[in-house]
Amino acid sequence: MVDRTNLDLFGKDLSVINLGLPSFGRDLAAQGVSVVDPSWQPPAGGDEVSVAALTRFLAWPEAAHRKVREANELAVKRLREAQPVILDVRVARDVVPGMHDKLILHAGPPVTWERMCGPMRGGVIGGLIYEGLASTREEAEKLAASGEITFEPCHHHASVGPMAGIMTASMPVWVLENKTFGNRAYCTLNEGLGKVLRYGAFSEEVLTRLRWMRDDLAPALAKVLAASGPIDLRTIVAQALQMGDEGHNRNRAGTSLVLRHIAPHLVESDLPRHVVARVLRFLDGNDHFFLNLTMPACKSAVEPIRDIPFSTVISTMARNGTDFGVRLAGLVDRWFTAPATKVDGLYLPGFSADDAALDIGDSVITETAGIGGFAMAAAPAIVTFVGGSAADALRVTKRMYEITLGEHPVYQIPALDYRGTPTGIDVMRVVEKNVLPAVNTGIAHKEPGIGMVGAGLVKPPVACFRDAFQAFVGAYDERAKALG
Amino acid sequence: MVDRTNLDLFGKDLSVINLGLPSFGRDLAAQGVSVVDPSWQPPAGGDEVSVAALTRFLAWPEAAHRKVREANELAVKRLREAQPVILDVRVARDVVPGMHDKLILHAGPPVTWERMCGPMRGGVIGGLIYEGLASTREEAEKLAASGEITFEPCHHHASVGPMAGIMTASMPVWVLENKTFGNRAYCTLNEGLGKVLRYGAFSEEVLTRLRWMRDDLAPALAKVLAASGPIDLRTIVAQALQMGDEGHNRNRAGTSLVLRHIAPHLVESDLPRHVVARVLRFLDGNDHFFLNLTMPACKSAVEPIRDIPFSTVISTMARNGTDFGVRLAGLVDRWFTAPATKVDGLYLPGFSADDAALDIGDSVITETAGIGGFAMAAAPAIVTFVGGSAADALRVTKRMYEITLGEHPVYQIPALDYRGTPTGIDVMRVVEKNVLPAVNTGIAHKEPGIGMVGAGLVKPPVACFRDAFQAFVGAYDERAKALG
Repeated sequence: MVDRTNLDLFGKDLSVINLGLPSFGRDLAAQGVSVVDPSWQPPAGGDEVSVAALTRFLAWPEAAHRKVREANELAVKRLREAQPVILDVRVARDVVPGMHDKLILHAGPPVTWERMCGPMRGGVIGGLIYEGLASTREEAEKLAASGEITFEPCHHHASVGPMAGIMTASMPVWVLENKTFGNRAYCTLNEGLGKVLRYGAFSEEVLTRLRWMRDDLAPALAKVLAASGPIDLRTIVAQALQMGDEGHNRNRAGTSLVLRHIAPHLVESDLPRHVVARVLRFLDGNDHFFLNLTMPACKSAVEPIRDIPFSTVISTMARNGTDFGVRLAGLVDRWFTAPATKVDGLYLPGFSADDAALDIGDSVITETAGIGGFAMAAAPAIVTFVGGSAADALRVTKRMYEITLGEHPVYQIPALDYRGTPTGIDVMRVVEKNVLPAVNTGIAHKEPGIGMVGAGLVKPPVACFRDAFQAFVGAYDERAKALG
Repeated sequence: MVDRTNLDLFGKDLSVINLGLPSFGRDLAAQGVSVVDPSWQPPAGGDEVSVAALTRFLAWPEAAHRKVREANELAVKRLREAQPVILDVRVARDVVPGMHDKLILHAGPPVTWERMCGPMRGGVIGGLIYEGLASTREEAEKLAASGEITFEPCHHHASVGPMAGIMTASMPVWVLENKTFGNRAYCTLNEGLGKVLRYGAFSEEVLTRLRWMRDDLAPALAKVLAASGPIDLRTIVAQALQMGDEGHNRNRAGTSLVLRHIAPHLVESDLPRHVVARVLRFLDGNDHFFLNLTMPACKSAVEPIRDIPFSTVISTMARNGTDFGVRLAGLVDRWFTAPATKVDGLYLPGFSADDAALDIGDSVITETAGIGGFAMAAAPAIVTFVGGSAADALRVTKRMYEITLGEHPVYQIPALDYRGTPTGIDVMRVVEKNVLPAVNTGIAHKEPGIGMVGAGLVKPPVACFRDAFQAFVGAYDERAKALG
């Protein structure tokens, strides 16, 4: 027992800073002693290579650190200033840079046919059949393995794709522009849930829907955009965050707001009424319709930070179902990858974790730009879906402020008194604090041809963040020291 | 200074219960002594007549208290079980019980033309011109004062009306049914904001819009309902609460959800395309469209508790701009009124508190049924609008659990981990705890003919709750004692 009279000798209350086991502090607290627990963790989770990189980085002269700060401020400024608008819906071949008939774009960092996961192979099979380049699964697999088809990441073509993220030449795509910087971004249209190409399904049902989207939906949306003019997505995303969406796993509000905006224009078009009705029913029946708009909105927002020398801000996160990949503003197009991880999720009836593919899709671009998991506090429904509470959702977002450098000026969180979402992930902070970006996601079946089996939360692999930071320090070390 | 060694003599820690000034407790707490502050307030805010009524009530035999409990449990059960659906849109004359061409229904408890506030007079003037019973303001005022027109509360005709709440015979109305109990409720269609009849405006612009609503909007909605079948409002309200609405001052999500539900049916109808487009534009341009659905939904929910002997649950709250009125389940149709209060709000440019009418409208039926101000935690935007924080919004809802007897099974609040909204206001608790129902509202100009000037929060007058409780105790005292 602590002798309290000794404490009184000092004339005021004292506190104990406990650097020992937590139980030491608890014992003191139980006796009424004020205890401060610094909740200390070793830097970089104790990873020696990362600690060495951090040490090198911290030893840089102040002039170099100023350069890093200025570069990061520029990156955050650009992310905050992005103004994504929807311009058009067009055929990929006609607008996506470098698109051609033998090119298939996919989600995540580069991956070969041989290393592709099941759902991505399923998407490729479906894409080849959709394009008329194959008529059966077997033909498609043979063609895909033949070397005749080129596979490249969506991200290398100003594009993003959810889940498998397959884009082929004749697919319709949203055309977005970041008005502030003039760059464009592209994404396919969302098919809905369940048996859909992006989850690796390629049955006739899937292909029939894709053809309807190409023949009816896309031209209808193009007509709407021609009549309405560009649609301001920044405002709609901001409103959706006030309405329980976070723009990745929950898009009900955004879908509703887009639908109410386009409905009158659709009706005023010269489209047959049954087409207008089917388009409206399709949107009403698909609460993820808006995901394929938040994704290119975020892609258009990160493109202007693709190349900012000395910046440690993450410009891309993406997964292909085999690898999780990261790119930094300061290292331009260089990918840092590590094996994709399992998703902690809930499964549709009849499926379990045994059926699940690994983490997949470009949709983590939402988190990269400061919404999705980073705006989890706006959408507690997602956390409670996997057994958490509204307080957990708040905690997730608050944690993300620890690894980000700014707050978004218009994407705001009501439950945090309209604080801007955490924006601009600093890979140095991720590594030093050992706090990983929070990511929401859907779950695909691991085999081709099946589709969605669940949804949940995922922890990216720490290795790619550590590798990226080490490479950053290595790449800039000489230049940084020369500034001293 | 407290000698802590004395405390130790007892072998365990002691606490002090501080019934004195808060500063006594703070002094002890500063010395590390555990202090319990019961934050005591006198019952009924110290009101002697209410204390006397509470004393009489508490003296009732246990059998009487059991009867009160059972009656209140029944009331809460019925409120929880309500299943409001939209059946139809019809002309008031054809469906509203007792409606006739010389009858004007208004918001709140009964009020004569002489005692009507400005915006309600404005609504009456507009209603008479709309019906062709007068052609100028002067003619209308003369007719209204002549005794030839009957004025009755909407609430006496299974109806509710926002703000002035004027309903005349040829106005179109929503027809709702509480599926569980089979009772119906009616409400006019929402006109939008600004210069509108419900805020007392009656210019040509207002009347032209009302005629369009009668001639185009209402028949269109009726066609949709004929095609779609009844629309389940319980589910839509529940979803809207997950999307930042509270169903009284914020209805953006509810309006969006209704729009997306009806849009395909509208397009598939035989209505001219320009009519369909205008209906969709009107809904998209009016985020309060859904208010005139939450209101009759709540009216249909409270109607089954209109007459429950021995129940202290509030069955109606309503204001006519002159008086605030309350009815109890245990006293059936008897109104208890007190002068309407001022609204604490924000004003549109060019207007100030000097322009404001007093609290007005039947929209407080939402709070009576457990949404609106009671669900404030779901819609922090409303509180921040008047300078509060998200924490304030949480506090408002938490406070309402103190005066309610149940929680709604499907109307839930994400930020409170999906706790059901506080449902079933117990007038005894309101009086005893001196905690008044939290009410959100719009603000009308005090003169007829002008319209909306702001929105805010309002504290109902305590007197009508105290009167109602005293009357309840008086009405049941003999029967209660006889049970002993």
